[in-house]
Amino acid sequence: MSILVVGSVAFDDVTSPSGSRKNILGGAATYFSLAASYFTDVRIVAVVGEDFGPEQEKVFRDHKIDTRGLERSKGKSFRWGGTYTDNLNEAKTDYTELNVFETFQPRIPKEYADTDFLFLANIQPTLQANVRRELKGVQLTGCDTMNYWINRTPKELAETLKLVDVLLINDTEAKMLAHETNLPRAAQKVLAMGPKALVIKHGEYGATIFFREGAFGIGRHPFRAPTLPIDEVQDPTGAGDSFAGGFMGYVASQKELNREVLKRALFYGGVMGSFAVERFGTDRLQHLTREEIDARFQIFRELTHLE
Amino acid sequence: MSILVVGSVAFDDVTSPSGSRKNILGGAATYFSLAASYFTDVRIVAVVGEDFGPEQEKVFRDHKIDTRGLERSKGKSFRWGGTYTDNLNEAKTDYTELNVFETFQPRIPKEYADTDFLFLANIQPTLQANVRRELKGVQLTGCDTMNYWINRTPKELAETLKLVDVLLINDTEAKMLAHETNLPRAAQKVLAMGPKALVIKHGEYGATIFFREGAFGIGRHPFRAPTLPIDEVQDPTGAGDSFAGGFMGYVASQKELNREVLKRALFYGGVMGSFAVERFGTDRLQHLTREEIDARFQIFRELTHLE
Repeated sequence: MSILVVGSVAFDDVTSPSGSRKNILGGAATYFSLAASYFTDVRIVAVVGEDFGPEQEKVFRDHKIDTRGLERSKGKSFRWGGTYTDNLNEAKTDYTELNVFETFQPRIPKEYADTDFLFLANIQPTLQANVRRELKGVQLTGCDTMNYWINRTPKELAETLKLVDVLLINDTEAKMLAHETNLPRAAQKVLAMGPKALVIKHGEYGATIFFREGAFGIGRHPFRAPTLPIDEVQDPTGAGDSFAGGFMGYVASQKELNREVLKRALFYGGVMGSFAVERFGTDRLQHLTREEIDARFQIFRELTHLE
Repeated sequence: MSILVVGSVAFDDVTSPSGSRKNILGGAATYFSLAASYFTDVRIVAVVGEDFGPEQEKVFRDHKIDTRGLERSKGKSFRWGGTYTDNLNEAKTDYTELNVFETFQPRIPKEYADTDFLFLANIQPTLQANVRRELKGVQLTGCDTMNYWINRTPKELAETLKLVDVLLINDTEAKMLAHETNLPRAAQKVLAMGPKALVIKHGEYGATIFFREGAFGIGRHPFRAPTLPIDEVQDPTGAGDSFAGGFMGYVASQKELNREVLKRALFYGGVMGSFAVERFGTDRLQHLTREEIDARFQIFRELTHLE
């Protein structure tokens, strides 16, 4: 079934111990939609500037991503520059230029009204809530956020959290949102804010999904999917969004939503995140096959499988 | 089969967000031997001072730990004071008093000559190497070390690493030892230094075991065992040593050494580490049952088990 992502499309300048790339296609919605496109039909709502040309369009078209919701505005696209040193888990932001993204008001094309699955990438919480309210027929909504909104707009974020089914954030964000350092306790506090399930991403260690009691009718035992970097980590940018794309894309591709589907989705999230970081930008995500994806799924499964 | 641990027995003063305890029994060899005692017969070589009395002796005796190698010296035992703030992964050392441990020269009682399994807890690498050379009949040797020895005595440590079968260290130590930030690549570099297997402990995320090509005849695919804090984390002290005790103790309890045994051992390591941190000092490790241990093993197994 179709999945719609609302978020940023950007140009990035990235430096890491593996080298430097300038002006490469980035943005949360880009990483998400490329990762999800290997599992299901993807639609995008985002805004780009006049610097977004045929070369960038082709990336979306090659993956059959529906760009009717991609708004073109006067000016430049969102631009971000970041540097990774030896600690690849954290980028130093060199600059952020919001440009056309500063006044982004997501507009949902009429043709998207029948959207089944929705992912609200990391944007201002009220914009996220508005999109969710507009799309009344959505079966399942995933949502991301970040430290900035947790600290600056806690009330608005609280409203959004009541409207989403699965929240996908990292350890630091979960602990900050819950004001609690113990991970399972932090998870329970976040679940009490609204989401039925909480996916906490642990970077290179994988991710854990926690369930609210009774959510999806599947009991509350958490589940963890490990990952392992296979190749060189060239560029960690977009790992979390690629994780979300793999997770939500796999869920959207399944007929039923049950515990086993959510468990496999968590593994597919880790798989797509691990591919994303192997090359700069979206390079690796652009040139995958479903066979490569399933082969890595098996490797990660074997990584923790006891007879 | 019997396992011998050589390392420290200490008294600790610990402060954490959960409270404070003074003068509690600690030390790497203490945590290790208590954790291992639930799986197999344990022997200890360590040194204590005159402050080590009947109360402490009883802890070892209650777990049938053979203390004929526990040397009594004039003066005080090794003492350590540490404080954990919100980041429970790292202790701030308030003080370290080596006392009788400063001149510790491990002496192996004659009765220990038939030792099958050996664990060299974190002590000066040359002392570790001497013990390993003295015990010629040992089937498998596990070893720990720390940043201090990696930086200060790299040559001595390199000699020790040639003599051990399994090295158990954490992420930071592995990356430091290998001069390499990518974990799988760091692992390969460490394995090239001597050990057949390398266990990298990831704190609350579990641990990964990497194998040298051809080691134990089981292929080189790594394996990861996740953990999850179940209860409150009161005191992280000794988590790594308890992990090692669970891992080595389980290995020593099995008739054969194969891939499946090492995988289950990694889970048991995580189980014992997760119990250790639930109470201050060795409190939780002193009062476990094998049934509780196996129940948690099942929880951790289910945590990542795909149908």
